[in-house]
Parts: sequence; C-alpha cells; structure tokens
Amino acid sequence: MPEVFEQDYTLELLQQVTNALNSGQFVQVRRTLAEIPPCDTALLLESSPHKVRTQLWQLVDPDIQGDVLEELSEDVRLSIIAKMEPELIAAATEDMDDDDLGEVLRSLPDPVYQDVIGAMDSQDRARATQALSYVEHSAGALMNTDTVTIRPDVSLDVVLRYLRLKGELPDGTDDLYVVDKDNCFLGALPISVLLTSQPDKLVKELMNEERETIPISMDESDVAQLFERHNWISAPVVDDNAHLLGRITIDDIVDVIREDAEHSLMSMAGLDDEEDTFAPVWKSSRRRSIWLGINLLTALMAAFVASFFEGTLDILPILAVLNGIVPSMGGVAGSQTLTLVIRGIALGHVNATNQRFLLGKELAIGALNGLLWSLLIAGVIALWQWDFVLGGVIAFAMFMNLVAAGIAGASIPLMLKKMNIDPALAGSVVLTTVTDIVGIFAFLGTATWLLV
Amino acid sequence: MPEVFEQDYTLELLQQVTNALNSGQFVQVRRTLAEIPPCDTALLLESSPHKVRTQLWQLVDPDIQGDVLEELSEDVRLSIIAKMEPELIAAATEDMDDDDLGEVLRSLPDPVYQDVIGAMDSQDRARATQALSYVEHSAGALMNTDTVTIRPDVSLDVVLRYLRLKGELPDGTDDLYVVDKDNCFLGALPISVLLTSQPDKLVKELMNEERETIPISMDESDVAQLFERHNWISAPVVDDNAHLLGRITIDDIVDVIREDAEHSLMSMAGLDDEEDTFAPVWKSSRRRSIWLGINLLTALMAAFVASFFEGTLDILPILAVLNGIVPSMGGVAGSQTLTLVIRGIALGHVNATNQRFLLGKELAIGALNGLLWSLLIAGVIALWQWDFVLGGVIAFAMFMNLVAAGIAGASIPLMLKKMNIDPALAGSVVLTTVTDIVGIFAFLGTATWLLV
Repeated sequence: MPEVFEQDYTLELLQQVTNALNSGQFVQVRRTLAEIPPCDTALLLESSPHKVRTQLWQLVDPDIQGDVLEELSEDVRLSIIAKMEPELIAAATEDMDDDDLGEVLRSLPDPVYQDVIGAMDSQDRARATQALSYVEHSAGALMNTDTVTIRPDVSLDVVLRYLRLKGELPDGTDDLYVVDKDNCFLGALPISVLLTSQPDKLVKELMNEERETIPISMDESDVAQLFERHNWISAPVVDDNAHLLGRITIDDIVDVIREDAEHSLMSMAGLDDEEDTFAPVWKSSRRRSIWLGINLLTALMAAFVASFFEGTLDILPILAVLNGIVPSMGGVAGSQTLTLVIRGIALGHVNATNQRFLLGKELAIGALNGLLWSLLIAGVIALWQWDFVLGGVIAFAMFMNLVAAGIAGASIPLMLKKMNIDPALAGSVVLTTVTDIVGIFAFLGTATWLLV
Repeated sequence: MPEVFEQDYTLELLQQVTNALNSGQFVQVRRTLAEIPPCDTALLLESSPHKVRTQLWQLVDPDIQGDVLEELSEDVRLSIIAKMEPELIAAATEDMDDDDLGEVLRSLPDPVYQDVIGAMDSQDRARATQALSYVEHSAGALMNTDTVTIRPDVSLDVVLRYLRLKGELPDGTDDLYVVDKDNCFLGALPISVLLTSQPDKLVKELMNEERETIPISMDESDVAQLFERHNWISAPVVDDNAHLLGRITIDDIVDVIREDAEHSLMSMAGLDDEEDTFAPVWKSSRRRSIWLGINLLTALMAAFVASFFEGTLDILPILAVLNGIVPSMGGVAGSQTLTLVIRGIALGHVNATNQRFLLGKELAIGALNGLLWSLLIAGVIALWQWDFVLGGVIAFAMFMNLVAAGIAGASIPLMLKKMNIDPALAGSVVLTTVTDIVGIFAFLGTATWLLV
C-alpha cells in the first residue's frame, strides 16, 4: 500500500527518536534508523544539538553512512567526519557519486585526507583523484561520469536491447547521449522519444542535435541558471573539444540553487552559508565575532564623527536624544535597496545595460520617500518639542540621508561586484557606514549651523 | 553542431537587444525574439526597465506569449498582463500548464478575470475552473493533470506499444503511474525499469508499490522539502481516498525552493518576495514606505527612551557621542541569531524538540561575545576618553545588550511562529526595538547611576 505523507511525519519522527535517546533506548533508535531512508536520517542529524548528533551517528548502520553523508550540509558533514576513523571515511565514500566524493575529500584537513586516500583501493583512489581534479564550484565538480552513451547509426531496437542487457539506468537519466567513436558529443536522445518512436528508426534520425552542452569550467551558479531557465533534468558536460565528460543532474542543481539563494541571506548577517544551526557554542561565537568586530569599527567611526559636535550636544542635549533617528531610517532604506540589487545581481537581472537606470530609479525612490518621511518627522518633532526650526533641521537631514541611502544602496553592490568583492558579504557594512556618517553630519551639522 | 554555452551569452544578448531598441531597429529585435527560446525572452523582460519592457513585449510573437508568461516571476508577469486585452490573455493561457494557468488567473483583478474567462472556449473554461479550485500554495495548485497511467496486469510489451501509439510523453515523465479501474493509485513504474526489463514481464511484478504520494492539500513548501530530501523528479498527487489526481514536477519545485529561500531575504528587508527590480518608482516607493514607517516608530520609541536621560546627557555630552555604539552592536549580534533561527525554521531543522537547546546556545554565544567585546570597548573608551569608569559603564551595557540580543534573536522568531506571524517579516523590527531599548537603558541608565 503506497504511503501517504503526513505533514508532521518528520516532526513526530524527531520527537520519537529524541525521547528514545533520552531514555537510553539505543536499540530502538538503531532499529528506527535502519528503517527510515538516509534522507530522513540526515534531517534528524541536522536538527539535533551537537551531542545528540554524535550519539545518533554511532547508531547509524555503517553500510548506509555514505548515503547519509551525501545528504548532509557541508558544515554538519564536516563535524561528523572530523570524528571518524580514516578507514571508515574511505568505506563510506565508496558508493558516493563523483561530485559528493569530491566535496567530501576537498573538505578534509590535509593529514586526514592522506590517511583516507591511503585506506582506499587503487580503483577508488583513481576516481578520487579524478574527482578532485576539477575546480571547486565548477561544472566539473558537480558532474557525474555515469552517462549512458550510444552511437548515431544504430536503430532504436538495438538501443533497447542494449539497455535491457545493461539492466539499470543511473538515477535521473532522461537523455541518452549520442557520441562518435572519439567520444565527441553529437546530440541527445530523450528516453521519452526512445519509448514513443518506432523501433526500426535510427538514433541519428531522432536525436536532438541542438542539445546545449555545459563547458566543464562553467561556474556552478551559471549552470544552475541554465537549468532553471530551460527546465532541464540533466545536461551533458563537455571539454573544450566537445568530448563528453559526464553529466549534471537536477538534484545537485537544487542544492546549488538553495545555497545561492541562502548565500545572500546568510552573508548579509555575516554568517557562513552552510552555518550549522546546532554547532558548538565556541565555534559559532568565534565565527560571528569577526562580523561584530567590523561593526564595532564602524560604530566607533560614527561616534568619532559625532564627537566633532560635542560642543553642540553640550548646548542642546535634545539633539542627543534625536540623533539616532536619521541614521536608523537611512540604514533601513539603504538595506532595502541593497537587498534588491544584490538579489538582482544574483539572478542575472542587474548588469551593465541597466545599472544606470537602476541607480536613477533608486535615487528617485529615495527622494520620494525622503520627502514623505521628512515632512512627517518635522511634524512629530515640532509638536513634541514645540520647536519648528528643530523640526526643519531633522526633516532636512532625513531627506538628505534617504537620498544618500538610495544612491549608496544601489551603487555599493555594483562597485563591490566590479572589485570582485562579494556584495552580500561586504555590502551592508559599507552601507551602514555611509548612512550613519551622512545621517550624523546632516543632522548635527545643520543643527550646529542653524541652532547654536 | 551542438551549441556550447558562453558564460556571457545572456549579457551579450541583452546588450544587443537594448542597443537595437535604442536605435529603433524594431524589426531586428522582433527577429531576435523569434529565434531565442521563451526562457531567454523572459530573462530579457525581467532585466529591462519598465518602459523598455513594454516595448519588448509588443515585439514578442503572440504565439509564444503564453510560454514567455509562464517563465516570468509573478510581479513582472502581472505588470505585463495588466496592459493586455482579455482576448489576448485568454489566447496566451491556452497552452499553459494547469499550475501556471491557475497562478495567472488568480493574479488577475476580478473584472479582468471575468473578461478573460468570457473570452475562453468552454473546454478551456472548464480547465480554468478546475485549476482555480485548489488552494493557493497547495500541492493541488502546483499539480498538472498530464499523467501517463497504466494497469497492473498488462505486460511491459503492451505498455511499450501503448506509448508508441501515444506518440509523446509529457515533459519530465520519469514514472508511469499504475492505477486500478477506479483510478486509485497502486504504484509507479519508473521508465528506467520499463527500458531495462524483459518485455514479457507484467507491470505489477516490477512496479514500485512503496512510492510515496503527495496529498492534494499539502503545503507547497512541505512538498518542496520532500522533493529535495528524496531527489524526486516528479511525484504523484492523490486525494484523501488515494485517487490519482495529477503529478508535480521538479521544475515547479525549483521555483518554490527559490521563492522560499528568497522569502526570508526579502522579508527581512521589508520587501515582497516577488518584488520586481525594475518596477516603476511610484509603486516601489509606496511598497517600501510601510516598512520605513514602522521603523520610524521604533526609532521614535528609542528616542523617547533616551529622552528620560536628557538631564544626564546635558551634564555629560560624551554619552551622546557614544550612545549609538551599544545598540548598534546589539542589533548586529541579534540579527545574526535571528537570521540563523529563521533559516532553521524554514528548513525544518528548528522545532519543538530542540528550541530550548537553541535558546541556551544563543544565550551562551551572546555571553561569550559580550565578554570579548565589552573588554575591548572598555579598553578603547578608557584610552580615548581617559575615563576608566566610563569604560566600565559601556562595557557593562555592551555585555547586557549582547546577551539580550542572543535571547531575543532566538526567542522572537519562535514566538512569532507560534502566533502564526511570519518571523522573517516581523522579526527584525521587534528585535531592533528590543536591542535599541535595552542598549540605551543599560548605557544611559548605568551612566546616570554611576557618573552623575
């Protein structure tokens, strides 16, 4: 009887396993882990605090440890591998896809890597060396070599008999690849065409010669964009001379898409994409403190700017009370623009042809919103403090800072991109520095000029 | 000769089309648009400012307008449909997949919807009504009805002959679905098994009876998590009585995954997920101003808190200069925790079984980082202002605020989630309010007590 999924299936599983672990029923947990698919075991590990995770892993059947490792995010996988014996790592990687094998090996510290390679048999070692030869985050590193290739001048009937002899097809095979005797890629025969055409037709009559191929050095994000736009399930990878090297499948692309989309979110908060929610305290706090350190520098810089106006603040302490408002609004408006532009760059929508337009548009939005909020804040402050000049001063500063925020939010990521610095990582720090300093100067500067 | 993709292919295309448009060579643009696939036309439209987009759309062959509309993000699609005649919309939706048809129709304003439905023939109208009957963002709304179904007691040979008669398979077909005479789902026959098994075998001997099915009402994000964990290419959708209703394919899931991942990023900046980078100024600024308004309220609240200490600020203007540092650090530390927890919730890693652990962990990180940065800031301020008590005061405030940031960053999204409020949308406002107020109270309060 086919199983219908319950929405809370995984949550129940998690609760059940956690309870069993807490009450020491290790045998029962081991039995549960043997019954569920590797992907669910991976979810359990990802959702568990560090200590529970270590316990759980010891209860996973060594035969499926490789399958579970493949499903884990990099950070979690590393934390588990760090405690495994090299022989066990070598055994677990045996049945891995080439791309996962490469990723695991790449993530090992050098001495452990040597031990793992040493524990492999010669065939696995050759496969490992091959997998490691491709540049990280390139099409090569995403690729598997398990393609099914056929010749153009045979009939479909011959192909069908060949496949029955072969006995099984690699997961996610939607195309057979047609190659010549030098293994040059000639086209693809979709298996849907193979199934729906007359068996006496020749491959070359039916194959898709227009099938696009992926160059081995293409960046994985570009590959993902192609998959997404063309709705591919798999795609052939070739070298510079059109030799077929392997294929990339949609399941690996889904990971790239998820990682790319999360990259912006995580980087903008100064976190690593693959940051493990349940990493040990010490490791997490060390990672995050770099970002806090950079922020402290910018906060001190803003304080230093404010210190120019200590005399003014001494005379008019109300300015100190209101001094946070303008930089805060600038920061929020700027980060809206920044987020939009960073996403636009990541999706390939923002580029040389339209960045000038974009800058103008964000400037106009800054001016419009600046007008709206400066009028409003002027009213609030004038009524609260019964001081119309003060209202005018804060309104002017608000307008200036929102315009500056629009310009900075649009231009900073474009400039960083040109300098090959990741806009998602560095953008918000640079932006906040600009909006803080412009905001303080505009507010305290104008106040010093008009009110003191 | 198969085409090898150039990394900059789309950028070149974009430049070429933009140049041609600017110099009025509309015929050439029309010809280019007729040659490139609909997905590339969609990219051109997404990357174009509003006015260029309208021009471009008029040059797209009406026969492929439907295909292009399917590829566009919701916001951009809406902006284009808003300017189309109902008859043209009806024509463009004719060849759309059910799920895209439903999405387009759902997004129409009511009078336009009536006109579009009126312009359809009765068959299309029935399909439209069916597509609209499913809840938005449910499995039903993602589903297509183009399944290939077979009976369990026929041989593979019969299946193969049936498929040849059929002549083609729907895109992304990796499984044939086995149903009984009441259309109840019995299992799946992977086409890879069909291809590699002996033709005299029966379907029921080879079908996968364990194939999981998706209930029609399941939320699309849950469906996406299942696809991602199980590496599915398609999955059958059933009603409560196991009747087969349709199937969901990976290309639609990729969109869900991208949207879900972007949702957190965009919401945290107060933007709509599908926000169009090139929307008209007026529309963009109106949308964003809501967020700015909420932020103004919290900034005024912080100013109000600071105003309690106006007397202290009057005596010690240096406090005004330094007052921004502690809230700023709290905001950054808190948003790191917030981002991590929001992502953990979205991925299904954070839930009832581990939230207490998470809270403790983030509190510990806050305390550790608090210790580090309070010592550092104490040193900096003591040396800068040559005032050791002031250094102590800011250190104490920093420590308190980083601990508060850890607690708030972890607990706010969990509380919002329990109240059914989207943590990504409301989380950062609530957080900033907490870290601003705690920061100001801790710094100015302690200073008033110790220094005045």
